[in-house]
Amino acid sequence: MKYQFSENLKYMKSSAIRNLLKYIQQPGMISFGGGMPNPETFPIEKIMEITSDVLSNYGKNALQYGTTDGLKPLREEIVKFILKDENIKCNPENVFITTGSQQALYALSKIFANPGEKVILEAPTYVGMISSLNANAVDSESIEMDENGMIVEKLEDKIKSMVDNNRKPKFIYTIPTFQNPAGYTMPLDRRKHLIEISKKYEIPIIEDNPYGDLRYSGSKVPTLKSLDDDVIYLGTFSKVMAPGLRTGYVIASEEVTAKMNLLKQALDLAGDSFSQYIAYEYLKNGIIYDQVPKTVELYKRKRNVMLEALDENVENAEWSKPDGGMFLWLRLKKNVDTEKLLEKAIEKKVAYVPGSAFYHKNPELNTMRLNFTYAEDDDIREGIKRLSMVISEA
Amino acid sequence: MKYQFSENLKYMKSSAIRNLLKYIQQPGMISFGGGMPNPETFPIEKIMEITSDVLSNYGKNALQYGTTDGLKPLREEIVKFILKDENIKCNPENVFITTGSQQALYALSKIFANPGEKVILEAPTYVGMISSLNANAVDSESIEMDENGMIVEKLEDKIKSMVDNNRKPKFIYTIPTFQNPAGYTMPLDRRKHLIEISKKYEIPIIEDNPYGDLRYSGSKVPTLKSLDDDVIYLGTFSKVMAPGLRTGYVIASEEVTAKMNLLKQALDLAGDSFSQYIAYEYLKNGIIYDQVPKTVELYKRKRNVMLEALDENVENAEWSKPDGGMFLWLRLKKNVDTEKLLEKAIEKKVAYVPGSAFYHKNPELNTMRLNFTYAEDDDIREGIKRLSMVISEA
Repeated sequence: MKYQFSENLKYMKSSAIRNLLKYIQQPGMISFGGGMPNPETFPIEKIMEITSDVLSNYGKNALQYGTTDGLKPLREEIVKFILKDENIKCNPENVFITTGSQQALYALSKIFANPGEKVILEAPTYVGMISSLNANAVDSESIEMDENGMIVEKLEDKIKSMVDNNRKPKFIYTIPTFQNPAGYTMPLDRRKHLIEISKKYEIPIIEDNPYGDLRYSGSKVPTLKSLDDDVIYLGTFSKVMAPGLRTGYVIASEEVTAKMNLLKQALDLAGDSFSQYIAYEYLKNGIIYDQVPKTVELYKRKRNVMLEALDENVENAEWSKPDGGMFLWLRLKKNVDTEKLLEKAIEKKVAYVPGSAFYHKNPELNTMRLNFTYAEDDDIREGIKRLSMVISEA
Repeated sequence: MKYQFSENLKYMKSSAIRNLLKYIQQPGMISFGGGMPNPETFPIEKIMEITSDVLSNYGKNALQYGTTDGLKPLREEIVKFILKDENIKCNPENVFITTGSQQALYALSKIFANPGEKVILEAPTYVGMISSLNANAVDSESIEMDENGMIVEKLEDKIKSMVDNNRKPKFIYTIPTFQNPAGYTMPLDRRKHLIEISKKYEIPIIEDNPYGDLRYSGSKVPTLKSLDDDVIYLGTFSKVMAPGLRTGYVIASEEVTAKMNLLKQALDLAGDSFSQYIAYEYLKNGIIYDQVPKTVELYKRKRNVMLEALDENVENAEWSKPDGGMFLWLRLKKNVDTEKLLEKAIEKKVAYVPGSAFYHKNPELNTMRLNFTYAEDDDIREGIKRLSMVISEA
């Protein structure tokens, strides 16, 4: 049969990162292309203990359908955790469990924006937000970034011109701390300014904070959500427990979580009950507070190795010096196209993600994202040497 | 802040079944309202052994992000299982893992139908399909059922008139075996006729088969997919392992699974890796073949208890006599509205789902769905007595 598909996916294309996979698996390849946590950080022994406890104590519930908004004891533990960790005050009714943060991005895009309407992004931004917007046929405008993240000084003029054209943005999406892909962190004064603009124009902020706990230098900056309760906050266990358990959460007003609930009934009914019980025990028993410092120690070392290797080897480029997270952003001379350059890099057995993957529109072609948390230390050194050769030949 | 939401959810309303929950939890309530498997059927001990093996042997992969199409070893085991179980021949590339069957319903609705376009349903049909259509603003026409399921004899005229109006349906959705909510099973001749029409008009069939393994009487009828490879087949581990692990699968041509893949990248990136490894071991070690007969034995007894109690107590009604599955369908006299009747039932401490929940449009108000697999045997007897009083007073 010749299947006739709808027009709903017309803006979607397969992610550049996923297309990289076939190269990354070649023998001898050193990849800075991935976005996966280092499996050395997974608390396998602890999860083994937890799963045994969960099945013994709550087996019938942990294997049964859960409620759409998520396991109540987990939501209660998140309330305590997020107060301690990020000074965010909320109730269990404000916490909505999602199948990873990706589901939150999809749902929020759909809940807030009709097809063809616009939202505001950072440029570059997280690929998962780009695919969510494309799947919902939502349009965007982007705000440039500098080493302090989104240049909020440029935001108000952008909003004004959008409002004048009757295209008021439906939300502002930001990863203010250790941004993916750029590695930048927005300082407090800019955060306050961003909130001011959000309130003035009544445009909600979506704050995505998957990396907040992974700080290697500098001082903690308050989350936007802790400064303003109107902010919609996205958290996840992917980087502080394990991504395979697909458990994220949204913290928002009950008005927003009610809409999420309605949509999630259609998306997948409810999250994985077993994984939610594991996350619950992981928080309740305080394992997260032992585990995160180990992850920070490992990732900090790897960040330092990569920054040193870049300093020693790479010319004709500039790059971010992230205080945390998993990525740094490298910018070559204007005339270099990193998509084309990738072929040569693959020949030299080193891989990265071309920066164009991280722009919804108008990509800067001379950029790339480097992950520093996955490769072995020696491979980071060797990979950066190979990359420096590719760059100097360009 | 006053949030402005999109129009995307304008057709969505909270499920009648979920609204029932607050009543069901009242003390002394006997509920035939749920759709959850009986937790006595959960292989908790076996899953305890499996999880320990999975974490010991594949811990780093089982806690890591998986691929969007699902764990390859699981897809390979499903290929073997579905050949043995349902005589469906396919390759791992045809198997696409979803976050429960609900995600498959949402994705297929979106992939095949633009907003405002029509599909064909059985009336009544599964609530999860209704919510998927509503979330995607997809319209429908329905075909009546008799005790042999969808009256396929009425299908071709319906399609002709839709084609004449330039509203060719985008797919035909059916649960041909132990239908939810009605409990009917479509015999082989009707299945063949359905496939004939599907091929003649080039309209794909979506065959949803969550209950196929739960047969208590009568002989197995071949799945539509085993009769015609163009059929898109939906399977799930919810009823033969545990629903809390949210693992379903689609078997379809690679053209269809490629579209599913693209959309799932936006929906939730990938399914739960840990749950997929558990399902993999559950199949590979053949535990499913020990477990299903136990479930069948329990549910068969409960079905018999309910059918006997209905025979002994209920007048002025007719009901289906399902050969399997979890539900039966009860029809009262034309003038009775089971939504209104529910208040009186709740007073008498018995609950059901009013039939109107299972119609996308034009509900038959004198119907209700009864689940026979969850309540204790004595509660089934007592609950049906209470229900018979409510019905005779109507």
